[in-house]
Amino acid sequence: MTKLKLYDLDVSGNCYKVRLFLSLLDISYEQQSVDLMGGEQKSPEMLQQNPFGEIPVLVDGENIIRDSQAILVYLAVREGREDWLPLNASNLASVTEWLMVAENEIARGPGDARLHDKFGIQIDVNSARQNAERVTKIIETHLINRDWLCGDAPTIADIACFPYIALGHEGGLSLDAYPAVRSWIGRIKELPNFISMPGF
Amino acid sequence: MTKLKLYDLDVSGNCYKVRLFLSLLDISYEQQSVDLMGGEQKSPEMLQQNPFGEIPVLVDGENIIRDSQAILVYLAVREGREDWLPLNASNLASVTEWLMVAENEIARGPGDARLHDKFGIQIDVNSARQNAERVTKIIETHLINRDWLCGDAPTIADIACFPYIALGHEGGLSLDAYPAVRSWIGRIKELPNFISMPGF
Repeated sequence: MTKLKLYDLDVSGNCYKVRLFLSLLDISYEQQSVDLMGGEQKSPEMLQQNPFGEIPVLVDGENIIRDSQAILVYLAVREGREDWLPLNASNLASVTEWLMVAENEIARGPGDARLHDKFGIQIDVNSARQNAERVTKIIETHLINRDWLCGDAPTIADIACFPYIALGHEGGLSLDAYPAVRSWIGRIKELPNFISMPGF
Repeated sequence: MTKLKLYDLDVSGNCYKVRLFLSLLDISYEQQSVDLMGGEQKSPEMLQQNPFGEIPVLVDGENIIRDSQAILVYLAVREGREDWLPLNASNLASVTEWLMVAENEIARGPGDARLHDKFGIQIDVNSARQNAERVTKIIETHLINRDWLCGDAPTIADIACFPYIALGHEGGLSLDAYPAVRSWIGRIKELPNFISMPGF
C-alpha cells in the first residue's frame, strides 16, 4: 500500500477528526500542512483534488477523498473496522444521521461561531450561537442514557461530532449546562491512542 | 416486514428524494402528511421521533430514521441494493462526499434560496444565491465527462443532490449556463419508476 497523505491544518477541527481517527486506528501517514489563511486550498493544484477548495483532503494512491466525514467513512471501511462503522442498514443509517449533524447543525453552530470569534470570519454569529446551543442541547438529551452517539461503543459518529463541541468555548459556547456532553467528551479523550489538538 | 411509514410533505425536496427512491425501488409505504407550516414537525410526538424537528422521518418497525440522506442510505442497504450504494471503501466514500454536498452546500445554496423566495423564510438570501451558483458550477464541471455523480451508474448521490438543483428556478437559480447539469437531470427523469414533484 502507498502511504496515505493528509492535507491538513492543526487548528482545523475537521482536519483534527481525521488525524484523531488515523491515530486511533494506528495508521501512519504523511502530513502536508496547508496555508489556509493564505488561501493555499484554493490553488489550482488543490482545487484539482477538491473543487470545493477545502481541507482536509486524503490521498491514498489513486483515491482522493474530500470532506472530513467521507474520509472517516473511507478509513473505517478500508481498514475493515465495522466496530467503528457498522455496515448493516440500521446502524449505518444511525451513524450517517450523526455524520449529517456534524456536516450541518454542528458546522452551522459551534463551528461557525468559532470561525467568527477565533478567525474573524464575517457570518451571522447570533444565528450560529443559537444553533450551537440547540444542537448541544439535543446531544445532551440524547446522551443522558447513553455512553456513545450510536449503540454501545464508539463509532465515527462520535469522532465526527465531538471536536467542534469540545472547541465550543472558542465560539462562546459553554458546556456548563451539559454534563452528559462533558462526560462523553471525557470518554473520547480516554480512548487508546487519543491525540489532542490546539484549543482543547 | 411491517409496512414503512414516511412522514412527508409534497413540496419538500428532502421528502421528495425519499419518495422518489422508494418508487425507484418499487417499495410500497404509508404516507403521513405533516403540516410543516403549522409546525406539526415540532409537536411532542414528532420531536420524540426526530429531536431536530424536521421531516422526512421514516419509520420501519422499531427503526426510526431521520435526515433524508440517512434514509436513502438505510433503504439502499435494507434492500441489498449495492448498485445504488456500493459498500467498498472507495465507492462508499465517493457517495458519502456527495451526500455531504446535499446536506451542506446544496442546502445552504439552492435549498435556502428557495426557502426564502417560495416560503418567505428570512435568511441571508444573497449568500444563498452565491452558494447556489458555486455548487451548481462545481457539479457542472464534474459532470462534463460523466453521466452520474459517482461511477458509471446512478447512485443515491444523484438522488440526494438533484432535487434542489432541479428546483433551483424557485430560488432564482437559472440552469441556462449549465448544460451538463440539465442533461443529468434529464437522465434521472428517465429512470424506470421515476416520479415527479410540485415545481418540476
